[in-house]
Amino acid sequence: MSALGAYQQTEAMKAAIELEVFTAIAEGNTTAATIAKRCAAAGRGVRMLCDFLTIHGFLIKEGTHYALAADSALFLSKLSPAYIGDATEFLLAPRLREGNARLAEAVRRGGTALGEGTLEPENPDWVKFAHGMMPLMRMPAEIMAGELRGGGEALKVLDIAAGHGIFGIAVAKHSSAAHIYAADWRNVLEVATQNAHAAGIADRYHLLPGSAFEVDFGGGYDLALVTNFLHHFDAPTCTTFMRKVHAALKPGGRAAIVEFVPNADRVSPPSAAAFSLTMLASTPSGDAYTFAELESISQDAGFAKVEFAAPEIGMDRLVIAYR
Amino acid sequence: MSALGAYQQTEAMKAAIELEVFTAIAEGNTTAATIAKRCAAAGRGVRMLCDFLTIHGFLIKEGTHYALAADSALFLSKLSPAYIGDATEFLLAPRLREGNARLAEAVRRGGTALGEGTLEPENPDWVKFAHGMMPLMRMPAEIMAGELRGGGEALKVLDIAAGHGIFGIAVAKHSSAAHIYAADWRNVLEVATQNAHAAGIADRYHLLPGSAFEVDFGGGYDLALVTNFLHHFDAPTCTTFMRKVHAALKPGGRAAIVEFVPNADRVSPPSAAAFSLTMLASTPSGDAYTFAELESISQDAGFAKVEFAAPEIGMDRLVIAYR
Repeated sequence: MSALGAYQQTEAMKAAIELEVFTAIAEGNTTAATIAKRCAAAGRGVRMLCDFLTIHGFLIKEGTHYALAADSALFLSKLSPAYIGDATEFLLAPRLREGNARLAEAVRRGGTALGEGTLEPENPDWVKFAHGMMPLMRMPAEIMAGELRGGGEALKVLDIAAGHGIFGIAVAKHSSAAHIYAADWRNVLEVATQNAHAAGIADRYHLLPGSAFEVDFGGGYDLALVTNFLHHFDAPTCTTFMRKVHAALKPGGRAAIVEFVPNADRVSPPSAAAFSLTMLASTPSGDAYTFAELESISQDAGFAKVEFAAPEIGMDRLVIAYR
Repeated sequence: MSALGAYQQTEAMKAAIELEVFTAIAEGNTTAATIAKRCAAAGRGVRMLCDFLTIHGFLIKEGTHYALAADSALFLSKLSPAYIGDATEFLLAPRLREGNARLAEAVRRGGTALGEGTLEPENPDWVKFAHGMMPLMRMPAEIMAGELRGGGEALKVLDIAAGHGIFGIAVAKHSSAAHIYAADWRNVLEVATQNAHAAGIADRYHLLPGSAFEVDFGGGYDLALVTNFLHHFDAPTCTTFMRKVHAALKPGGRAAIVEFVPNADRVSPPSAAAFSLTMLASTPSGDAYTFAELESISQDAGFAKVEFAAPEIGMDRLVIAYR
């Protein structure tokens, strides 16, 4: 019963973020009446929503007063620099919801019920991704950049499906001589460009707009970042793509593959393994690949050695393939 | 993040029930390929869905073989007499989903964004309720009927918003002289009538079709069942309605109110308290009422004494009001 009704948690969180309930409480409004006034809502509606959020651990209720749980204060209040509420624009984008709503059809077909799903050219949902997911990715990007810096300095860096650009920007901040070449759809690269300016590395930031399968990457790269990209495609397509990455690297160059990597059992760890269903719902033939599969894809593409790096990159892992 | 993505659990369960994945496994199909063949689906899609169901505890995976967790075998396989999969037709009815999807609007208004919501006359979703929820209600109805029988035999019984009719039918099975008068929309009473026939009590089963607020109940009842009804309305409407129930009872007669009853804190127990949000999403002014509120409603309607009966009636509780 709780799994069947789980969607109400999604709707409640979405409504609370949209109405700025968490921010209202952080500002000092602690009763249903005062929160309602701040959020331009009905006291009765706020009381029912806040009770639900309390039941699920996002708020704490004492008498008729609500307070933020620690995680809510950190991530869901706009007063917090770690606010991640904008991630809902991507995570709950209508097209992604629709793909999941048509899951039985996707299971029958073995791929999304939405045609090309999220892979359509210039799909505006990737702009939402770039905007909304950036706050969630700062720390993972920093961990990845530190780990890669430990393996040697990279001066020419290709950032594939750059999105918000935060992974490439983190590498540029670790190496003051590094130049980043960011590949993504033109509309998405506008966000990455803004972030490169904000990070003070715009003079070392170069754009490669278009489909990553079609654009000319050029060559001579020390490092290629392939972050949260391969899971959108089937394994043969990944191999073809990694061959193109291999060709763009210098001898001795590295491809850094950042991915949800389930264990060989495909049911652990939970968040990485569960991501496979999102790919079923939203792409024609994507999947969450195990390390053995990523190793095989990379070796088939010509890479000499493939390593599973130790640190967790948020919910992702880092796989390094050496040319 | 898991709360935001919780809707995928709903979609996965809905898809698995629709595709009969649990039944397929109960029939002895244990690999993605054989389950897929039985369910007319793609092996790849079944594998991704079954892995997700494993992560959430509904299946057990060993190597490439899937088995049913105990609860799944009991409640989600059509081979089980306790199968409850049809409950999804009501619990995930599109209109209820839409009310929840428009939750921010409901919080702003203090009531459903869907006009009359689930309260429209002859709403076909109540036929889905009557069909789908019956298997879940047999045991609670039996517990309620046993508890009420302990307080004395009832010969003339009013069953308000009878739905599947199971509560009234359980009372009739406990007292071979009892006659049941079932009130509900005409389309819903067709389901209750079928169930009364199946239970062998059709000769003691009488119909009162129409709005419970408008239909003439008659009088002289020993017992009135008010099961999962009051939560759809605001407290003044409940009081007005209970006055009508009071008038239909004999002196000394009882009203048995079966409801989700949250504690005074309104955030426990979790399932009863969380039900309040469903009423916000789907009704203009419904709520889950505390015992103190139900007591006050009943006393304002003229009842002399109100008791909180001990047993849990499924996720509901039983409140007995005495004329």
